[in-house]
Amino acid sequence: MSILFEHAAVLPMDGSRAVLKDAFVAVEGERISYVGPERPAGDFGRVIDCAGRVLLPGFVNAHTHLPMTLMRGYGGGHDLQSWLHDYIFPAEAKLDERAVAAGTALGLAEMIATGVTCVADMYMHTGAIAEQVLSAGLSANLSLGGVYFGAPEDFSPDKCGDCVDQRALTEQWHGAGDGRILVDASIHGEYTSCAPLWQWMADYAQAHGLGMHVHLSETVSEHQASLERHGLTPLQTLDQYGVWDVRAIAAHCVYTTPEDWALMSGKGVSCVHNPWSNLKLGSGVAPTPAMKAAGVNIALGSDGMSSHNCADLFSDMKLAACLPCGVGRDATAMGAWDALEMATVNGARALGRPDTGRVEAGCLADLILVDFSHPNLTPCHDIAENLVFSARPSDVSMNMARGRVIYENGNFLTLDLERVRAEVEKYALPLLFGTR
Amino acid sequence: MSILFEHAAVLPMDGSRAVLKDAFVAVEGERISYVGPERPAGDFGRVIDCAGRVLLPGFVNAHTHLPMTLMRGYGGGHDLQSWLHDYIFPAEAKLDERAVAAGTALGLAEMIATGVTCVADMYMHTGAIAEQVLSAGLSANLSLGGVYFGAPEDFSPDKCGDCVDQRALTEQWHGAGDGRILVDASIHGEYTSCAPLWQWMADYAQAHGLGMHVHLSETVSEHQASLERHGLTPLQTLDQYGVWDVRAIAAHCVYTTPEDWALMSGKGVSCVHNPWSNLKLGSGVAPTPAMKAAGVNIALGSDGMSSHNCADLFSDMKLAACLPCGVGRDATAMGAWDALEMATVNGARALGRPDTGRVEAGCLADLILVDFSHPNLTPCHDIAENLVFSARPSDVSMNMARGRVIYENGNFLTLDLERVRAEVEKYALPLLFGTR
Repeated sequence: MSILFEHAAVLPMDGSRAVLKDAFVAVEGERISYVGPERPAGDFGRVIDCAGRVLLPGFVNAHTHLPMTLMRGYGGGHDLQSWLHDYIFPAEAKLDERAVAAGTALGLAEMIATGVTCVADMYMHTGAIAEQVLSAGLSANLSLGGVYFGAPEDFSPDKCGDCVDQRALTEQWHGAGDGRILVDASIHGEYTSCAPLWQWMADYAQAHGLGMHVHLSETVSEHQASLERHGLTPLQTLDQYGVWDVRAIAAHCVYTTPEDWALMSGKGVSCVHNPWSNLKLGSGVAPTPAMKAAGVNIALGSDGMSSHNCADLFSDMKLAACLPCGVGRDATAMGAWDALEMATVNGARALGRPDTGRVEAGCLADLILVDFSHPNLTPCHDIAENLVFSARPSDVSMNMARGRVIYENGNFLTLDLERVRAEVEKYALPLLFGTR
Repeated sequence: MSILFEHAAVLPMDGSRAVLKDAFVAVEGERISYVGPERPAGDFGRVIDCAGRVLLPGFVNAHTHLPMTLMRGYGGGHDLQSWLHDYIFPAEAKLDERAVAAGTALGLAEMIATGVTCVADMYMHTGAIAEQVLSAGLSANLSLGGVYFGAPEDFSPDKCGDCVDQRALTEQWHGAGDGRILVDASIHGEYTSCAPLWQWMADYAQAHGLGMHVHLSETVSEHQASLERHGLTPLQTLDQYGVWDVRAIAAHCVYTTPEDWALMSGKGVSCVHNPWSNLKLGSGVAPTPAMKAAGVNIALGSDGMSSHNCADLFSDMKLAACLPCGVGRDATAMGAWDALEMATVNGARALGRPDTGRVEAGCLADLILVDFSHPNLTPCHDIAENLVFSARPSDVSMNMARGRVIYENGNFLTLDLERVRAEVEKYALPLLFGTR
């Protein structure tokens, strides 16, 4: 179907930091066919009057763990080790595919309602996640977070569960849904595996044209342990094995160094900044202004919903813009446009999706409308400032993924929220937590 | 009218950190008459089934500048001095009572929709603010932010505009609306006045039984300049003149010292923490865990809507809970209950309102309902965690101020939003910013 958006304020996110006023955006099938000041010729199946609304690319949530939505708020208020070992790991041990599907669908509902059209997820039972993503209409880079706790000399890809699963995941899902699903290779973290897995994953990604998704330098203890074990940072350690020789997503990067940033910039490794998770879990504050100055591509992630308990890219953008200003005592350290780029075009770049994250003719029609008539967006002196510092999920009036309207005025058009809720409450929660 | 809330999860905020499940709360006139597990006897004009909803005290926004809502996002991205001198001050110079009223009403609309029932405001044309607060049904401590830029030896209270205005404000408004309006004395800041004004305000507050509202140690330059001028911190400087000998609100406190905290704790000076404003304006991070350990009462404020561009006490609570954890690398540095106390009972204490901020029989019925059926609050492992880390303004389904429902299911019952919007767009914005 063809759709015309008329009289919209449009953020192209094409690097110009411009806002087009009273613009027209046409969508044919799953792609944008026109962006400009004149009404394009042609008949449109639907014409949407966008007066008072702002059109921008759907958000790319570049690091999350969708099924962990089931553990939102579980074990809160405990330190990281207690939270993981006493709460999260025991619950995760009980997960099955059906529970993962339920948690994924619940997480996707929240993301859709807050304007997300594309995610990078890392979790187990990954095929069940792929099915839910396709069903909901979004796009996703999926990975399974490879771990290997055995002795290095015992490593065999045919006996390493995550290598076996990686092969199956790639074969079944890479490129599925006309490219909506991309499979990434992955290493959960430097501290949960060893050299043979790193080498295998790096080689496997190269051989199959996959990207790489890794938790990197999230905590100071991870950083220091790597220095002690290898004399190198986690990034530099993994670099010895070619892990960064493909397009790569490095999530967190709180304790990365200037040497790390030079390597990331040179090899095209994207940082996914997860500012709320890093605060709530006591990890620290990532040095994003310095990374940006060093030329690192910085994307934005919510992390799992057990880490700061919600997926709200508006709030992530606001914190990404404000946190470096306060911590660095410099009100110009990071701004609204920086945050908007992190949440859209930079995220798309991190995920290897060059035709996503911008509003340009030829790009995929992943688009959201934000209603600026609400009191919290009045007045509007500056659209970018209002989007980043004043807008909320409830201001999202429409979410379009690949040309298909999947959410509009509070209604989910690809998800049955009542069915999802019933699956969560009647199946997944009793399975994980017993009857309470 | 009498109202019964039944089957609610209730946060009494009485110091117990308990949540009452399936509880009943009765309201008679403007006060709570019963809280407990049994249905109270009597006929009720309205019975509200609260299954799936959480009842808690309305939020106290303990430091704001309501009319600055007109300047939301104006001059963003500039450093503090440029923002103030090139943007904010020139706009403020054009304000009149009608524009202040319009900006106040707009700000109140946003606050009501996000669950605020009581504010402490500091701004000029204060009488116009009082009228709007009463009309909207909220309660407020109002102050005018006394400044004096003349030579100390020339000071005369009869010639100092803010002293003259303070007297008029007190006489006309203190105690108005059956105590809904309280007038506080105020000093805008140590750096915008001098000793004769401090002495006069301190004596005036004592003589008239008023509280005191002061901007304190917001920036490092303010802190250092005070040390250079007086050899004392701003708090200690003002203490020489008896400024803290009445109930007092000290907004920001970013650069306060252990000696300051001892003085604040001893004299009952409340800190109002404004974490978003302090980040966005590059001021810094207030040492709230240390202040709390020193016994300082910490309340929560949004600051003006030009400072971080929205009033969302949920977001303020979340940042107040997370920021010290991240900056201090300690996930237990501050928690959900700490933030809930800041936003309710601690705020009421800061404002000298002992029968506000709690859900207890005899207290004023400032109450909000939060709808936990939304996807972003599903599942609910812990009500306090979900309220602070997952809830959003759009989850507030009802706001009751002094027993009167002023907002329900998205509808404003005391404000005509269209009239407010027209006043803002047709009168206030053209007056301040010209026709654009």
